[in-house]
This record gives sequence, structure tokens and C-alpha cells, in this order.
Amino acid sequence: MQLQLQTWQEVEAYLQTSRGIILPIGSTEQHGPSGLIGTDAICAEVIAQGVGEAADALVAPTIAVGMAQHHLGFAGSMTLRPSTLIAVLKDMVDSLVRHGFERFYFINGHGGNIATVTAAFSEIYTARSLETASNAAPIKCRLKNWWQSQEVHDIAKELYGDAEGSHATPSEVAVTQFAYPDAIKSAVLDPPVAPRGDFADAADYRCKFPDGRIGSNPALATPEAGRRLCEAAVAAIAKDYRNWVAV
Amino acid sequence: MQLQLQTWQEVEAYLQTSRGIILPIGSTEQHGPSGLIGTDAICAEVIAQGVGEAADALVAPTIAVGMAQHHLGFAGSMTLRPSTLIAVLKDMVDSLVRHGFERFYFINGHGGNIATVTAAFSEIYTARSLETASNAAPIKCRLKNWWQSQEVHDIAKELYGDAEGSHATPSEVAVTQFAYPDAIKSAVLDPPVAPRGDFADAADYRCKFPDGRIGSNPALATPEAGRRLCEAAVAAIAKDYRNWVAV
Amino acid sequence: MQLQLQTWQEVEAYLQTSRGIILPIGSTEQHGPSGLIGTDAICAEVIAQGVGEAADALVAPTIAVGMAQHHLGFAGSMTLRPSTLIAVLKDMVDSLVRHGFERFYFINGHGGNIATVTAAFSEIYTARSLETASNAAPIKCRLKNWWQSQEVHDIAKELYGDAEGSHATPSEVAVTQFAYPDAIKSAVLDPPVAPRGDFADAADYRCKFPDGRIGSNPALATPEAGRRLCEAAVAAIAKDYRNWVAV
Amino acid sequence: MQLQLQTWQEVEAYLQTSRGIILPIGSTEQHGPSGLIGTDAICAEVIAQGVGEAADALVAPTIAVGMAQHHLGFAGSMTLRPSTLIAVLKDMVDSLVRHGFERFYFINGHGGNIATVTAAFSEIYTARSLETASNAAPIKCRLKNWWQSQEVHDIAKELYGDAEGSHATPSEVAVTQFAYPDAIKSAVLDPPVAPRGDFADAADYRCKFPDGRIGSNPALATPEAGRRLCEAAVAAIAKDYRNWVAV
Amino acid sequence: MQLQLQTWQEVEAYLQTSRGIILPIGSTEQHGPSGLIGTDAICAEVIAQGVGEAADALVAPTIAVGMAQHHLGFAGSMTLRPSTLIAVLKDMVDSLVRHGFERFYFINGHGGNIATVTAAFSEIYTARSLETASNAAPIKCRLKNWWQSQEVHDIAKELYGDAEGSHATPSEVAVTQFAYPDAIKSAVLDPPVAPRGDFADAADYRCKFPDGRIGSNPALATPEAGRRLCEAAVAAIAKDYRNWVAV
Amino acid sequence: MQLQLQTWQEVEAYLQTSRGIILPIGSTEQHGPSGLIGTDAICAEVIAQGVGEAADALVAPTIAVGMAQHHLGFAGSMTLRPSTLIAVLKDMVDSLVRHGFERFYFINGHGGNIATVTAAFSEIYTARSLETASNAAPIKCRLKNWWQSQEVHDIAKELYGDAEGSHATPSEVAVTQFAYPDAIKSAVLDPPVAPRGDFADAADYRCKFPDGRIGSNPALATPEAGRRLCEAAVAAIAKDYRNWVAV
Repeated sequence: MQLQLQTWQEVEAYLQTSRGIILPIGSTEQHGPSGLIGTDAICAEVIAQGVGEAADALVAPTIAVGMAQHHLGFAGSMTLRPSTLIAVLKDMVDSLVRHGFERFYFINGHGGNIATVTAAFSEIYTARSLETASNAAPIKCRLKNWWQSQEVHDIAKELYGDAEGSHATPSEVAVTQFAYPDAIKSAVLDPPVAPRGDFADAADYRCKFPDGRIGSNPALATPEAGRRLCEAAVAAIAKDYRNWVAV
Repeated sequence: MQLQLQTWQEVEAYLQTSRGIILPIGSTEQHGPSGLIGTDAICAEVIAQGVGEAADALVAPTIAVGMAQHHLGFAGSMTLRPSTLIAVLKDMVDSLVRHGFERFYFINGHGGNIATVTAAFSEIYTARSLETASNAAPIKCRLKNWWQSQEVHDIAKELYGDAEGSHATPSEVAVTQFAYPDAIKSAVLDPPVAPRGDFADAADYRCKFPDGRIGSNPALATPEAGRRLCEAAVAAIAKDYRNWVAV
Repeated sequence: MQLQLQTWQEVEAYLQTSRGIILPIGSTEQHGPSGLIGTDAICAEVIAQGVGEAADALVAPTIAVGMAQHHLGFAGSMTLRPSTLIAVLKDMVDSLVRHGFERFYFINGHGGNIATVTAAFSEIYTARSLETASNAAPIKCRLKNWWQSQEVHDIAKELYGDAEGSHATPSEVAVTQFAYPDAIKSAVLDPPVAPRGDFADAADYRCKFPDGRIGSNPALATPEAGRRLCEAAVAAIAKDYRNWVAV
Repeated sequence: MQLQLQTWQEVEAYLQTSRGIILPIGSTEQHGPSGLIGTDAICAEVIAQGVGEAADALVAPTIAVGMAQHHLGFAGSMTLRPSTLIAVLKDMVDSLVRHGFERFYFINGHGGNIATVTAAFSEIYTARSLETASNAAPIKCRLKNWWQSQEVHDIAKELYGDAEGSHATPSEVAVTQFAYPDAIKSAVLDPPVAPRGDFADAADYRCKFPDGRIGSNPALATPEAGRRLCEAAVAAIAKDYRNWVAV
Repeated sequence: MQLQLQTWQEVEAYLQTSRGIILPIGSTEQHGPSGLIGTDAICAEVIAQGVGEAADALVAPTIAVGMAQHHLGFAGSMTLRPSTLIAVLKDMVDSLVRHGFERFYFINGHGGNIATVTAAFSEIYTARSLETASNAAPIKCRLKNWWQSQEVHDIAKELYGDAEGSHATPSEVAVTQFAYPDAIKSAVLDPPVAPRGDFADAADYRCKFPDGRIGSNPALATPEAGRRLCEAAVAAIAKDYRNWVAV
Repeated sequence: MQLQLQTWQEVEAYLQTSRGIILPIGSTEQHGPSGLIGTDAICAEVIAQGVGEAADALVAPTIAVGMAQHHLGFAGSMTLRPSTLIAVLKDMVDSLVRHGFERFYFINGHGGNIATVTAAFSEIYTARSLETASNAAPIKCRLKNWWQSQEVHDIAKELYGDAEGSHATPSEVAVTQFAYPDAIKSAVLDPPVAPRGDFADAADYRCKFPDGRIGSNPALATPEAGRRLCEAAVAAIAKDYRNWVAV
């Protein structure tokens, strides 16, 4: 159930049965020579919609631009400052709290968002924690990375082993191939498996990872693998959501 | 050309031919008993993608949550504070400037965004205007509402006359019906044409417009009208974009 | 009634009879070779004081520095960033709400303020709209440009036709000549009627409008015309204020 | 020389001879039963204009609303948050630096502004101090309270002794009587000399100083004393300004 | 080498040999009935000073108040909002960059800081990543939790097994007992091993963990264990620091 | 009583007897060729702990980094922007208010903090003053510079006369020598007594005061003088605290 495709009266009815909502968050950033700039947003959106259907949960519109400062050395990458993204998430949650939502389940497509989204949760909680005696209903936020389940991990391990890497991974590229088969790109990847390492700002990143990939060989991606990964992620996350929202 | 479906190398190539980019911005807010919460984001996105194709222009991901504080009395509506939205737009433009983009053409689906987006442009320009001697390339931003052309105005007038109203209009509902035919909703609209007037905060809005509509009769919307409106909007805006980006 | 010339006990008495207040807002920016830098603040102030007398309304001190980033290429121009101006307006309104004021009528002298002031209204409203059940008295803000009435428009049309232009207009210069007859400046205006067009940042503005004017011939201004314009504006706005504050 | 009454070309010419500018800053707050709400802004403005004439210096428009949170218990008082006022002062100085101004001399009418204005100077300097090797021209800011000279102090002492007090003083009321003889108010002051003490927030202030005055007997004020105080202040400050701007 | 005990000339000399600095960051928050409120700051400080000596590195003053909103239900706990802590860390790093420091190694004593500190690094990097061609020296930040090494983990496992828990752990209490033997507290812990689980805001935390501990039995702590843990942490982190700063 | 060495239950017990807390605030900045960078933080901390013992008052952890933008020309100096420091102080006070603290007594070691800390108090109060009818307990903040008592002033005068100066004073250096006898530094001071004057940003400061001192001869400092100054300061401030907190 996409929030965008409901009327306000349908949302009002939904709130009679559930106080939970799913919020996909991705990023708009380079994913190597063959990966799409929207990879992280696409993965989060596709899997969130699957989870929404599987768990009868409302899905908010995707936050497509996340925290991706380290990718700014590559054309097309966009970032919000962490302080901006914190403000965005606070406003979004504050808006939904107004209507009675109490459980905010973020499905995330980008490792670079984790720290800032987690900090945003604390910013949101702080406003409540500073009040001595609030009669506001308690709220809870949860961040779930789409690749963060045993089932997805096992598939990626089976299919790609060490060539999964950590950026522009064959797994995430596969999910986008499954979602947008008309936008599959090919490119010469040299070396086939990209170097590994850590990084600081955009210049440092580009210097160490000249084509944008980290430790991965996305040439291994296939739409079929994307389908498997998607289904596994949806099943695992839908289960996690149902358990969490029920508490 | 959706930015999300490009690789960074394709964006690099695009920048050899154009310094312009289209950014759709909508809202997530109630649109009356039969209108979708995502109406404004859907209209902006659909028309921006049409313009992107017609004008060979890159289209950034849609900003789905805008400034909609006055709709918070209706379930599902979300807002960014104006100060937050200004920060978001500044970060997005700053990111793209980093790569060499110089013309930022926002296609807008929500009247409530106009003031804040325009203020954001000034915030972006101010950083440059305060520098005495900058060697930065000049940048320009433009806001175009999708309904803001003679052609679209004429169709709406012909089809709906005064029942077009100003919120949850049959025109915008028609565009969403064309875009999402499976999500067409029906509802008893009483009175058929909603009251008119101005408003302040969310409580004031809900008090004056109990079902969320202003001056409109969205029951008149049809997918076919949506198609006509879309095509007219795309043609008019693509022309405007091409002229503007060429200067 | 200027707020600045009242005692707090007089304001307390005023609040027994009215919850409205008028807030003039102008700008400090170049107005061409013969226009005063304070033109917009002077126009807003003079007309606001007239309205205050005509409508028995309290008039707050003039906000003299507005959003004028595009004029920074000309000596003496000052700007607040939009985000700063939003904070200023929020603090001012919040202060007055503390005392029981509920209607905030801004008389504006500068087109460049419109978007930011309107965004500030939304910022102010958002704080209230995000609260589920507030027992705060409802507040309303209204922005009225001093030139925004049929009567004023007709006089400007009659006197100046197309030479009214849009910046450093003979109308606004006339009002300042009426208000400050000792500060009337003359300058060679070449061409007599300035070019028209749009603009982005300060460098862009200065490049397109080398002497600061847009589309205007302020040499046509006279103090007598200023008097007529002032009187027409005061009458029209006082009527609008009285109607608005009564609702 | 009021900035507001100059053209941009006159300012450009002024900058050939001086890099200094005077900025009056006051407050909009209760001044007891007989003092004007605009007292601090009026004093700062009148004296700044005198100094401007005496020292051939440009005078910016008055900042009429300052930091006056402690007066919010009395109708008509307005405040900017310290963080807002810091942003305002930074934007104003940044704007003027753009044109080549380098010396910013604030003439202050309100003790409650001192800390925040001084903090704002540090905020402005910090942006420069954090740069390792800046080629920006050095700038300097100075805060001068209008009552802060031996000459003014002596007159106040002679005329009022201990009844000068520290808020709604006969000195400042006298200056406003001199400036606005038509707005002289009278009120029963009971006790004639108000209590003294410190204060925290608005509730605390109102509790300790029920009519708004601190330690003063403004009934002693006369327009003639206002004239003397004004002249003494103008002379002393003009001298200080000339010395300071010359370094 | 504590920065606080150096002269500026000694720091200047240090910069000839190293561009790295260690910054301890802790928290001020309840640590159960027998743990000190300063536990996290004490651990970070003691170990950072040890690392400073072992690695000949400068150690900045300890950031004693961190992000601890979830502990605000217990007296004495203090928090910075995430957005405030981000601003603090940015200012501190910006200050040190001014002098030529390039490697910022944060030794952390509080799990609740991790997300916000990591987001702060991104905020710092973003300012650089948004510049197209910066000639600023590259900087790098690293966060190291004091308990984050195999050696420390092994000792805690050996000594406490599952009773280590995750808040008010015997390990961290032991370190404070070693550091402040005069401040060892005892308390009845009931149950001996505290419950486990996750948490949201302060009310939620207090409800689930009534005495403040999570999963731990701090009664097992001894000063001697604290010594062992300290030494192990210092050795492991000093090695990590030396390797990292050398790159 | 250091807050850091208490348990939360001890703080809860303390609040039964007192609503006051002492917060030391210093700075991290150069203090001339022989003064420690931590001088201001050390002085504030040592004296605050003495006052805490003398007055049975809780002492919060020291804020070690203050507002020191003017010292950034000397290696090792760190600053918070005034706006950042205001946010920090607000968060700290807000946290403690949550537990029932009502009196916040800041013992300050750095003249450069005074304006910003005072502005922060106003920022904290403003949040309360803007509320019409708050039922929050009243809070009060007080700033006391450690050198701000007749007793301390007399000792400094007796020992150093005019060579006390205003930065890197023999008094403050003496206090650090008493506190950290192992960190006493010596340096050739040329001239023995440093020049005097005012300053703006860091470049201006360094230009006027090449070795960092202002008007002082810190070579006169001795640990024994530090002991006397400390004891005098503790006695005077403890008395002031007890009086203030009792009201």
C-alpha cells in the first residue's frame, strides 16, 4: 500500500488497524561504470513496496537523496548534509505523528545513510526525552538495511563470494536489473574486482576507487539473481516488521 | 532520461552537451475524498519525465515531500518546514554544481511549494552574491508549475470551468488517473463543488474545507483528460525549458 | 498609532479592542542612479503609518533590511538570507502572540520579499499545524504589497504607462520624494527607460541592468504623484485591513 | 548621512573616502508606565544620526527589534532570540563587506543587546579566523552604548542621581521626549523610584518589577534634559568614532 | 601529551613531527546503581591519555557530554542533541585544521555517540566534498571505541561472560574503579544481571531498564580488572593509531 | 561533589536538598610562551571543585572548549562558534532541568566566553519567556568569572600590579602552576610585559600580540601565589553561590 496512492480517508481507516508505516530511504550516487545512480533508492523502494504488500503496511514515498558526500567526485551524485537529512527525517516523522502513527520502519538502501539516520532517530527522541512529563504517545523508529538478513546474506555469498564487495555490489546491481530490465548497463570493469579500503571525503574516495566500485564485481549481476535477492529480502523484512510493529 | 537510471559516466557525457537538469518537486498531502495523497508528486514526476524525453534533458529524482503544513489536519499529509526544504534544495543544487550543472529547472506540482522554493533559490544565490569576486560559473534556477501554461489552462477551462477550483482540482486528479489507472478512487462529494477561500494553519484549513477540497469538483476528472493535460503540459514546458537552458 | 510611541499599558488597552497589528517591511537596496537605497522601507513605512491612522491600528517598527541578494552588486545594498529573515519574522510574531495579538498584517515595499515572507508565514504556521490538539488561539498573517490595489495600479498606469517598469519605478521613487522632499536626487538616466528581463544572483543582475533599474524611467517621478499614490494606497489598504481583521 | 537617503552611486563615492559605517541598534520593549516602547531604538537612532552628521559618516537603518526576552511579560515588547539576532548582524555585516566597508560601529540603545551583539561580532570574526590564509581585508566591529561616556554619565548623575536607575531611566526617557515631544506620556509612578535587582526570564522580571521600571524615576525626565544628553552623547561618540575609524 | 598542558609553541613544534591528534569523547549519563555518571568520559579520558603517552600523540581535552537522550529518565544524565554535537565536532576539527592538523582520532567511551560522531565526520567531509577543486590538505577522522579490540573483548569475555551486558558493564565500571579508587560505589543489584533489549526515548528506556543497567552485572567489576582492561585497550589502540596516522 | 563521580541515585538524593549545580567553563587557547593551552579550563575546574566542596554543591563536567576565535592564529587554540556554544549550553541546561535542577551557576575561566554565555542564558530564557502561561518551575543562570571578587583582585594587585595584564596573566598562570606543578613552563618573555590593546579576529590579534600575551608578565607567577588565588577565589565564590542559590 503506497501512501501516495491512498486518499486521506483510507489512511484514516488504516490507522484504525495499525500505527506503523514503512519509509524507504536510498541515495542518488554513482555505482561504478555499470551501476545506476539510483541503485540505492531503487533497491529500497522495490523492497519496501514488496514488504508493504506482504505485511499490509503503508509505504511512504521514497527518500531518494541521502547522505553521499563521499561520492561527489563522480558526476551525478547528490548528497544532503547530515544536518539537513536529520531535519528532513524529523519533519517527516513529526508530520506522521500528528496523525497517530507511532512506529516508523525505515528500509534503507545505502550504508552511508546508517549513521545519519540513526542520529536522526536520536534527534527525534531527544525532543521527547527532554520533557519531564509528556502525555504524547510513545514512538519508535527502526532502521533496516535491505541486505541485512541471513537469507539475503546467504544468497549473496553463494552467488558472488568475495566479489560482492561493499559498493556497487553485484547484489544491489542485480536488484536494479530485476526492477529496471530496460536499464541494464554494461561496461569494461578493470580490474574485475575493485580494490577495497576505507575513505574520507570525495577526493580521497575517487583517488582510491577510480571507477567508483569498492571490492565488487558487478558484472556478475543478473536480473534473475535480483529477483531471488528481492524475494528473500521482502520475506525476511516483512517478518521483522510484523514482529516489531506488534510490540 | 532519468538521472537514477544513468551511470556516472553517462552523466559525465551528458554534461558535455548540456548544463541543464530538471528537478520534479511535489507534495504528499490530502487531495480530498477521491484524490490521491501523492497527487502533486505524481503530476510533477510524470510531466517531468515527459519533458525529459521531449527535451533530451536529465531528470533528477522527485522531491516527494514538500511544504504542506496546511494539510496536516488530514491523515497521511506530510510537510517539511520551509527552513528544512530550503536546506534540502540548497544541498541538492550544491551537489549538482559540483559536477558542472548550471541550470536547475524545477517542475512543481504544488502551489504551496512556490514561496519556499523561490526563497530557496534566493538562499542559493545569496551565497554567491555575498562574494565580491567569485570565479564560480553562474547558475540559474527556475520554477515552473506544471499547470502554468496557456495550453493547459485552456484545457482545464474548457473541461471544468469554475469547477476546476484550486485544490484537489479535476485537472490534477485526471493526471493521476492517467498515470495510475489502477488507483482511481470514487467518493461522494458533498457539495459537488467545494467551498473557496483562504486559510492559515492546519486547523483553520480543516475548519473551512472539511473534506479537503477547495473550489473543485474532482468527480469530473477522467484518465483521458489526464492524458490531454499531460501532453499539453509536456509540450509547453519542454519548449520553455529548451529556450531557457539555451540562454 | 506607532507601537514605538506607546507605553505598554496603552498596548494592553489596545488589545481590549483589537487583536490586529500592522508590520511594515521594506528593503535596503539600490534603486538606480536617482532612487534612494531606502526606497522600499520608506514606502512601506509611510504607507503603513497612514493605514495605521486610517484604521486605528497599531503599527510595529519597520523591518528595514529584507531579502535583496540580487542587489548586492551595487554599493550600499544589504540583504538578510531568506533563512535569517524567516527566523526574524517568526520571533517577531511569536513575541506579539505572547501578548494576545492574532492578526499580523505585513505591508511590504519590496517584491523580493514576497517569497520569503510567505515562506515565513508557513514556518510560523507549521509549528502550530504539527500539534495535534492545540489550545492556542488561531493566528493569521497577511502580506500586502503597497502597490497591490486597483487604485494604485490605475494611477501608475495613467502617469507612467510602460515606463513604470519593475524596479526603481517612478511610482516608488515618487512616494519617497513625497516623504523626503529634501532628498530628491537627479541623475542622467541612459537609456531613459531601462531594459527588462529576469535575473539570478547579484553578478547576473548587475550584468543585465548596469545602472540598477529594470524597465523603469524614474525621472518621471514627482512628489505630487507620490502624494496621490500614497493616499490611494492608504485608502485601499486600510479598507482591506479593516475587512480582514474583522473576520 | 543616512544610508537610506543615498543612491548607490553616492555610497560608491563615500567608499572612496571612508570604510566606516554606523549602525544604530535598539529594542522594542516596555519602558515602564510613562516610557515609550520604542525608547531604545529612538535613542540609538537619534544619536546615531547626530554622530553621522558630526563625523560625516554613513548611518545604516536602525535595527529596531533587539534582544528583550525579559520584557515579554509586558504588552508590546518584542524580542529576537540571541541566535536570530546573531544571524541578522552577520548578514548585515557580510552585505556591507561585499561593498568594501571594513569598520562597523554599532550605536546601541539597550543594555540587553550587549552580550548578543558582542557574541555576533565573534561569530562574524570566527568565519575569518578559521581560514588559514585569507586575503580578505580585515574588518572590525565596535559596540558603543549611547550612554557610555563620561559626559553623558555626568549629566545623568547631576540631574537624576540614584533615580537614574537602570531601566526606563529618566535619561533615556528624556531623549525620547526631546525626539518626540508630541509623544510625552505621564503616569502615576508608585513608588516614585522603582525597585532594583536582577532578573532571569519574563515571568521573573514582571514579578520583581511590576510596572516595568528598574531603579528609576522617569518622571524626572524633561525634553530639555534630553537635548543636553543627546548633544553630549553625539559629541563624545563622534569623537570616539573618528578616532576608531582612523586606525 | 595533553594539549591542555602544552604551550602554543610546543604544539607548533609537535606539528613538525605529526599531523595527528587524539580526541577523547565520553558521555555524562547514569550507569546503574553503582556506576558513575561520568563512566564513559572517564574511560575515554584515561585510555586516551595512555594512548597519547604510548604513541607520543597529542590528546585534546575530553568531550564530556555526548549524545545520551535515552538516559534522561535518570537524574544527572545530560545530552547534546545530535545536531548540536555535530556542530561541536565540526568546530573543533575546523579549529585544529587551521593549525595544520590532518588526522583526528576520536577515542570514544559511549556506544550512543557512534552514530552522531560518524554523522559529524560526514558533515565535516561534506564541506570539502562540495568544493570542486580545493587546495586544502586532505583530512581524515576515525572513531575508535575503547572496548573495540580483540584483546579487550577477550578479557571481558574471560572475566564476565554474558554478564558483561551492554550498559553499565562490569568492564567500564572496572576501568572507573581503577581510575578513581576513592569513588567505588556499591549497591544492591536486583536482579544481579539486568534485562536486555532495545529502547527508544528516555521514558521507554526507564520503563524497560528500571535501574539503568542493560544486561550487565557491574558488581563483578574490580579495580584490578580495570587495570588489565586499560592496559590492553591502550596497547591495542596505540598500535591502531600509529598505523593509521602513518598512512 | 563531582557529578561525574556520583551515581544517579546519589543525584536524586542531592536534589532533595538542593536545586543548584555548578558548571565550570573554560577555553582551550594559547596563553603565551609559558602559559598552558588549557589555562582557562584548568582554572575554572580547580576552583569549581573547590567551591563544590566548600558549598556542598554538585559540579558538572568542565566545558573545556569555549569561544576563542581570536586565538586561532596560535597553534593548539580551539573555538566553538558563538552559535554552537549557545546550543551546547542550552542542551546542557535543558537536560538538567529535566531532573529538577533550577539554579545554574557557571564558573568561568575565560573573558572571551562572557558575551556568548550571557547570550546563551537569554536564549534559554527566551524559550520560557515566549510562553504565555507556563507551569514550568522558574530557572536562573549566573555567570561568575573566577577572578571576579575583591579578594582575588586584591591579591593580583598586590603581587603583580600592572603586570597582571589581561591575557596570559600571572594570576591565571599561577593557578595552573599550583594545579599542575609538573607542567610549569619557562620561556624568554620579550618584552617582559606584553603590549596592551584591543583586537578583532585572529589575524589582527596575532599581529598586535605576537607571542600571545596581552599586557601581562606571566614570569611573575608562582605555584604559591596560585594557591593563594585559588583559596581566595573558592572562598569568595562559595559564599556567592550559597547566597544566590538560597533565594
